[in-house]
Formats: sequence, C-alpha cells, structure tokens
Amino acid sequence: MDKPKKKHWKIRLHDVIYEADTSAGKLFDIILLVTIIASIILVMLESVKTFDTKYHDFLNISEWVITILFSLEYIARIVTVKKPYKYIISFYGIVDLLATIPKYISLIFGGVHALAALRALRLLRVFRILKLARYLGASYTLIKALKASRVKISVFLFTVIIISIILGTIMYLVEGDEAGFTSIPASVYWCIVTLTTVGYGDISPVTPLGQFIASIVMILGYGIIAVPTGIVSAEYATQNKADKELDKNVPLNSQSCVNCMAEKHKDDAEFCYKCGYNLHDE
Amino acid sequence: MDKPKKKHWKIRLHDVIYEADTSAGKLFDIILLVTIIASIILVMLESVKTFDTKYHDFLNISEWVITILFSLEYIARIVTVKKPYKYIISFYGIVDLLATIPKYISLIFGGVHALAALRALRLLRVFRILKLARYLGASYTLIKALKASRVKISVFLFTVIIISIILGTIMYLVEGDEAGFTSIPASVYWCIVTLTTVGYGDISPVTPLGQFIASIVMILGYGIIAVPTGIVSAEYATQNKADKELDKNVPLNSQSCVNCMAEKHKDDAEFCYKCGYNLHDE
Amino acid sequence: MDKPKKKHWKIRLHDVIYEADTSAGKLFDIILLVTIIASIILVMLESVKTFDTKYHDFLNISEWVITILFSLEYIARIVTVKKPYKYIISFYGIVDLLATIPKYISLIFGGVHALAALRALRLLRVFRILKLARYLGASYTLIKALKASRVKISVFLFTVIIISIILGTIMYLVEGDEAGFTSIPASVYWCIVTLTTVGYGDISPVTPLGQFIASIVMILGYGIIAVPTGIVSAEYATQNKADKELDKNVPLNSQSCVNCMAEKHKDDAEFCYKCGYNLHDE
Amino acid sequence: MDKPKKKHWKIRLHDVIYEADTSAGKLFDIILLVTIIASIILVMLESVKTFDTKYHDFLNISEWVITILFSLEYIARIVTVKKPYKYIISFYGIVDLLATIPKYISLIFGGVHALAALRALRLLRVFRILKLARYLGASYTLIKALKASRVKISVFLFTVIIISIILGTIMYLVEGDEAGFTSIPASVYWCIVTLTTVGYGDISPVTPLGQFIASIVMILGYGIIAVPTGIVSAEYATQNKADKELDKNVPLNSQSCVNCMAEKHKDDAEFCYKCGYNLHDE
Repeated sequence: MDKPKKKHWKIRLHDVIYEADTSAGKLFDIILLVTIIASIILVMLESVKTFDTKYHDFLNISEWVITILFSLEYIARIVTVKKPYKYIISFYGIVDLLATIPKYISLIFGGVHALAALRALRLLRVFRILKLARYLGASYTLIKALKASRVKISVFLFTVIIISIILGTIMYLVEGDEAGFTSIPASVYWCIVTLTTVGYGDISPVTPLGQFIASIVMILGYGIIAVPTGIVSAEYATQNKADKELDKNVPLNSQSCVNCMAEKHKDDAEFCYKCGYNLHDE
Repeated sequence: MDKPKKKHWKIRLHDVIYEADTSAGKLFDIILLVTIIASIILVMLESVKTFDTKYHDFLNISEWVITILFSLEYIARIVTVKKPYKYIISFYGIVDLLATIPKYISLIFGGVHALAALRALRLLRVFRILKLARYLGASYTLIKALKASRVKISVFLFTVIIISIILGTIMYLVEGDEAGFTSIPASVYWCIVTLTTVGYGDISPVTPLGQFIASIVMILGYGIIAVPTGIVSAEYATQNKADKELDKNVPLNSQSCVNCMAEKHKDDAEFCYKCGYNLHDE
Repeated sequence: MDKPKKKHWKIRLHDVIYEADTSAGKLFDIILLVTIIASIILVMLESVKTFDTKYHDFLNISEWVITILFSLEYIARIVTVKKPYKYIISFYGIVDLLATIPKYISLIFGGVHALAALRALRLLRVFRILKLARYLGASYTLIKALKASRVKISVFLFTVIIISIILGTIMYLVEGDEAGFTSIPASVYWCIVTLTTVGYGDISPVTPLGQFIASIVMILGYGIIAVPTGIVSAEYATQNKADKELDKNVPLNSQSCVNCMAEKHKDDAEFCYKCGYNLHDE
Repeated sequence: MDKPKKKHWKIRLHDVIYEADTSAGKLFDIILLVTIIASIILVMLESVKTFDTKYHDFLNISEWVITILFSLEYIARIVTVKKPYKYIISFYGIVDLLATIPKYISLIFGGVHALAALRALRLLRVFRILKLARYLGASYTLIKALKASRVKISVFLFTVIIISIILGTIMYLVEGDEAGFTSIPASVYWCIVTLTTVGYGDISPVTPLGQFIASIVMILGYGIIAVPTGIVSAEYATQNKADKELDKNVPLNSQSCVNCMAEKHKDDAEFCYKCGYNLHDE
C-alpha cells in the first residue's frame, strides 16, 4: 500500500505543477508568476550600481530566497514529470536550470553576474502560464492572423534587408569616415536605423548628396512601413470575420425556414422574416 | 415661500453647471473651456524663465483672476450638487480642487510652482465638456473600436514589454557601460526606445554585435508595429460597417413591429422575426 | 471692329492661362510647372552659402529671368481674368504676387533674401495644375476617404495634444533643467517628439523615474499610432469598394436576364449563366 | 556529328543556368545564391579596417575565388544564351560584369575598393532566383496590391515632398544657422527627417516658434503616415479577397467551357456566359 500512495502524491504534485484546472494548480501558477517577476526585478536592481552598493545584503538574501525557490521547483518538476530526461533537455528545462544555477556558480567562482541576467528568459514561461488567460479569447485571432501572414512578412523583411545592404553600400561610398560611415556593416546598420524610422543620429549623413539619398531612404521607409501593416490588417480582418461568422452560426439560426427556405435569420428570431412561419415548429 | 425660491435658484444654477442643453449651460461650458485653456497657457508661460522675469506682475494678477474664477466654480459645484461629498471625493472633484489651491498655498508657503502644473489635469474636463460635441458622431465609432480591441492591445503591449526585458538584458550583457547600457533598467529603456522606433540616440550600441542585435530589434519593431494597427483597423472597419448598416436600416426598418415592438428587422423583412406579425399591415 | 478683336485676344489668352483643355493651355501649364520648380531650386541653391559665393552672377541673372516671367504671368492673369480684384485678393493671387516682388524689393532695400523663400508657396499651384492629372483617377478615392475621416482624425489629434500637455507637465516636474526640460512648453514639445516616435534626442530623460514615464509615453505613442491608420484604412476601404462597385455597374451588366431575372452577370457575358438565354436579345 | 553534340552541351548548360525546373538547375541556383551572399559578406568584412589588416591574405584569396567563379558564370551565360549581345547590355548583364571586374581592375590600377561594393547590386538577382520560391504563393498578392496602389502612393509621396519643401523653407526663415538650419536644402532634409518620424537630432529646432512649428510637422507626419498604410491595407484586402475567391472557384468552375473554352465561370453557373453551352453536358 506504500507505493500507490507515493504515486498518488506524485500525481497530485504533478497536477499542481503542470495543470492549471484545479485551484491548487492556479495558485501554483500565480505564485510562480510573482516569483519570476520578483526575480527579474531583483536582477534589474542588482545591475544598478548605486542601488547595489546601498542594499547589497538585502539583494543577496533575496537572491538566495529566489534561488532556493527555483531549485525546489526545478527538483519538483523533475521528480513529478513522467520523462525527466525529456524535460531536462527541453527548452523550458534548460531555461529553468539556467535561471537557478547562477547563484550556486557565484558561490564557487565569485560574481558571475552576467549569468543571472539569463533569468530574464524565464519570463517566457509567463506566456505559458497565461495560456490560462486564453479564455479571454484575445490573442487567438491575432495569432491566427500572424500565422497566415508569416510567409508574406518574411518575404517583406527579406526585401528590407536587401534594400538595406544595397543602400548601405551606396552610402558608404558617398559619405566618408567622418560622418560615421566607417564600414559597409556600419552603413547597413545606419540604413536599417533609418529605414525603420528609428533614427538614433549616432551616424547621420553630412554631405548634400548623402542627405539627398538619406531622404529617399526615409521616404521609402515611410512608404514601405505600410506593407506589413496592410498585410496584418487584411489577414486579421479576414480572420476576425471568419471567427465572428463562426460565433454567429453557433446558436441555431444556420437552419433555414422549413416553409419558404429563407436563410440567415436573426440570432433570436422565432418567426421567419419572409413568410412569418414559426421557426420552432419542426 | 422663501425656501422653495432658494431651491429654485439652486436648481437653475445646477442646470447651468451640470447640464449642457440650455443656452446658459452651453455658455457656461464655453467660458469654462476658455478659462481652462487660459490657465494652462498661463502655467506654461510662467515655467519659461525669461518670460516670467519680464512679465511677472501680469502673470501674477492673471493667476489670481483664474484662481478666483476656479474657486467660485468649485464652490458653486459643491453648493448646487445633490451629494456634495460624492463630488468632492470624485476624480473631477479632486482635480478641480488641485487646480484651485496652488495659488493659496503659495500665499502661505511661498512659491510652490510645481503644484500649479497639476492644473493641466483639468484639461481632462475638456473631454467631458466636448461630450456635447458628440452629436458630431465622430468619436463614437472610434471609442467602440478601441473598446473592442482593448484586450487584444493589452496582450500585445504585454508582449512588447516582455520582449523589451529579454532583449534589454541581452544588450546589457553585450554592450558595456561606455555605450550607455549602464544597467538592465537602462537597457530595457533603450530597448523600448528602439522597438517603438523613437530612437533618441542618447544610448546607442557601439560594438558590431550590439549593432547587429539592435538591427534585429528595429526590424522586429518595424514588423510588430503592424499588429496594433491591424487590430484597430479591422475592429474599426467592423464597427464602421455595423454602424453604417444600422444607419441604412433606418429608412424602412427603423420602424418597430406594431405588434410586439421588436426592432432592427432585416432590410427585406416582411414579417416580424419575434411575433410573426405582418410588418406591412399598418 | 477693333474692340471685339481685342476681346477675342483676351479670351484666347484667358483660355490658355485658366483652362487646360486646349493644347496651348496644357503647354502653358507645363511651362509654368517647370518655371515654378526652377524658381524653387534657384532659391534653394541661393541659400547654400558656398554655392551662392561661387555662382552669384548666374544665380542673380536667373533670378531676374524668373522674376520677369512671373511678372508677365501675373500681369497676364490680371488682364485676362473677368474680376481682377477678386483674383488679386484671392489666396493664389497673393501667393503669385509674393513670389514675384522679392527681387524688386531687394533692388530698393538690398538683400531681403528671406522673402524669396516665400516663393515655395507657389508650389501649391502645382496641385492646381496637376488637377489635370486627375484623370489618373488616383487621388480621388484618397481625398474622399480623408474627407470622411476628417472629423475623427481631428478628435484624435486633439486627444494627442491633451495627452502631450498633461504628460509634458508631469515630465517637467519629474525631470529637472539639466535634462533639457527647462519649461513646460519645452516638455510638451519633448512629449510630442516622443509620442510621434520622432525622437530627436535633443531633450531626453536622465532620471530613472523620467525614463520610466518616457517608456510609457513611447508605448502609448506606439499603441495610438494605430488609431489614425485604422480610421483611414477603414474609410478608404469603404470608399474604394463603393467606387469599384460603381465602376463594375457601369459597363452594362447591371441589367438582369430578361428570361430568368438572374443578376450580376460577368462584364463580358453574352449569355445568361443561369438559363443560357442570349443577353443581347432585347 | 560534332556540331549537334556541342549544341546539345550548350542547350544543357543553358537549361542549368537559365531554367530552374531540373534538379541541376536548382542546384546551380542554390550555389549561385550562396556565392553571391558569400561575396557580399566578403566585401563587408573588407570594409572593416581592423578586420582587413588582420586577415588580409585570407580575404584576398577569397576575393579571387569569388571573382573567378563569377567570371566563369559570366562567360557561361554569354556562351549559352541565344543573343549574347542582348544579355550583355541588359541590366543583369551589366550588374554581373560590374560584380566581376573590380578585382581585375585592382590588379592593374591598385586598390579600387569602391567598385567592389557595386557587387551588392548582385543581390537583386536573389529576387530572380527566389522566383522559384514563388510557389509559396506569398509575395504574389502583395505585388498585385502594390501595383494597384502605385499611382496613389506616388501622389501621396509627391504631396509629402511639397509639404517638406514649404515647411522646410518656413523653418529656414524661423530658425537661424545655429540650430543647423544652414540652408533651405538642409531645412527640407530636416523636414523629411521629421515628417517620416526618423528624427536623427543632428538638426533640431531651438527657438520656441521653431519648436512649435516642428510639433505641427510631427503631428502632421503622425497623421499622414496613416495614408499609405490605409491605401495598401485596403488594396491588399481587396486583392486578398479576390485571390481567395479565385481559389474557391477552383473546385468546380476551374473547368473551362467544353464548347468555347471560356474560363472563370460563376460559382453557380449552369450555362457558359460566352456561348450559352450547358456546362453540365459532358
């Protein structure tokens, strides 16, 4: 009787960690979410020098608390999952490990601060946790629209990169080193900065010809920004329509009137709008 | 006979202040609008040092005129409203008070200039006043479209923030202090500046790898700017269509069924979809 | 017999200048277009100091040629138009005069270079001239869409301005003089620069709180850029559809089949697709 | 018997180079693609001074390998094509030549590095090669949408340029030399930088009036960015719909009329709209 009990405990823990249907599972997800966000804020604060010198002890203790919590979670995940090996080499398994070990490593080798920053990747789990927020029905149409326009946007981005390389090379020839166009990669970088309308100004043309070409690049960028927007708009509109149509048809009115065959009755119609026949007489 | 007269005076003042249907109410709204805009301009001019030293007296007197006008309005609102306490603790009540008191406080404590700037919040009342401009039918479809896409835009903005944190952390590791990436929050700030295509240039990558990652961030930002636009476009188009369809139905079908009062019949409906009554029997 | 002849000459000249249907009128428009563009380029080149010192004489002579051409045109317009006074005080009349006189004034008072720059306003006439390019059917749907969304875009821009004032004031309080937020107008200017994603970087926040608020402003700007785009997209789509539907109906196929009453035949249909009846048998 | 064999060899080589249907042709295209990308990366690395000094020999040898490969390809193209002269003076012929000769020229005249950068133009051939990727059906709708809105976008860009010239001239008059508005072309350049929301910050207004006008320019730019997006969105949506409708017709109506070969019948067509033949008689 010992073994099945143990199994039962494992299954229950598994459900808490991997399922979100039970209230215990939901609570676990919320605590995990809060811990991840707290760990991110902690890493951020540590990176601020003035803050780190002031509250070093507090940050150090908090780091250990987070690290131990993450360690416990990591062990629990390995213990309860059916195929531990598969979890360990999975993307989330590696991210979870990388988020846990930096503090242990710093214990041995001293401050390997950089690794702690990798913890930001754990934020990706937020998406997974928020899948329970899917019932909001929010991101669904969006994802479908993005999937539908994936290939087109790739073609578009590829075009942008080719334009950047050609125009960047031209600008490298036109502008000299003084303006910051020190190499072709730097010029291509400038071209992307300009084409995407970011415009840092760390590199900017100084010769009249360079400024003229830059103007063309800008207007071009201004013109082609319309393309991905247009694609996503159209695809989203199509998806949105299809989804709404699906919703509309669900109730019961997809049925036509048995008397006159008129279709597309209103959702709450009780009588046919064409012949006045009672739609519920069947 | 004294009391009802007094009440009558209160009700009339209440109508002037809170209603916009009468010509007196409209006039009050216009004067309020002008006074608010004048008070904002005044605060702006005061903050310009060279202007303040030149025309100090004029600005001071104008400030007092505005303050007294706002005080009178505030008192009138409290006196005439049915539940004064509710108004005082309401958002607009607090804003109105904050817009009024700075000058009185400066009288006691000296120049508390900063508080006067809070007056800018009174501009929000402009929205309320311009609700009378709603009959333009302008902002209506827009508001509905924004409401419909509210959740989706939230999901999108949340995604943007997560991307900013992850990419900002990576850039903090790649670029050093020299380029301005002094801490993770600063790097995340840079990432938001870049992703939104603002691009101040106060922080910009200098290493080739940093510039390469920055290019990806820019193209990413360029690509995902399409998403909220696509959402709003599609939702707005849907709302716009629905609104216009509603308008179209007005000619014939705005009439409700004379039998059961059901509304919004189909364009070519001949019988009421609710009760089956012949719509043309009149 | 002298007078009618003179009148005839005036009418012909009027037609050349004000009408674009005759080949002479078209030629006049093209010459005018070229002259205006040449005059703009001239003013531009003059403003470039190094160029002006080198080719001063050439620029001076060209200026006089343009000025005399514009003078002749101005006189011709006054002479041939029916109500000269109305033309003189009209927008285009004033612009034409302002484009002509700077050189004469410089003759009397010396270099009043600034006025010559006003000649750029003559570019607006290009729109008028290119109205003959209207037959391209290009800008038509666009103009209708912009007109339809005019009010909505105004409401939107008004909202942007109010947000800029409130957020600009907050930033003025948060950031000090050192970061460039020297006055509320300067802060509002910064806010518009940021909200529109222009981002010069001449003023940029340095305090963590300021950078945090700036991030919110940017994401806000990123989010609301979707609104005008959505409005114009939707309105344009509606206009476009309406225009195309109009085009479709024009040929002749709006007629239904006289045999079976089937509608919406293809443009080049000769037989009814429902019953096979010859559509041209009437 | 020698000649036809040779011809056969020529035709086979022609098919490999110019056709993409055979597996040899596909392999050739992939190798060409890789070589072009490698040549671009090579030119980029050469332009980076620190890299060039370190790995000069490696870069030099790689350059020669690429140059010889391109030479062989160029000769093969001339030999196998039917009208060699036509290929040589064609756009791709000139680009191919320009991409090949820089190294030979540098052998005679010494480092004419600049010419090698022209090789970036060979990237344009990638579009041609990727035409085989057309079966993805990706860029097709996009290209049609862009073609349909070509004229409208031209009109729009023309408007942007006119606005830039007028506003640039005004800013030149308002702001002095100190702020960077040294000439009208420089001011027009600034205006384009601002209107397209790039915002380098190399030139930015410093006077209050200049900043006020700049704010108007920005909000204007923010408002009109909606126009090309709206156009492309609407056109793309129309094209997308039309394409999908076409796809829908495929199941039944892709069959042409067996009598007159007319195609693209309506979904519910029973008779050919061209000849009246019964479509179901087969």
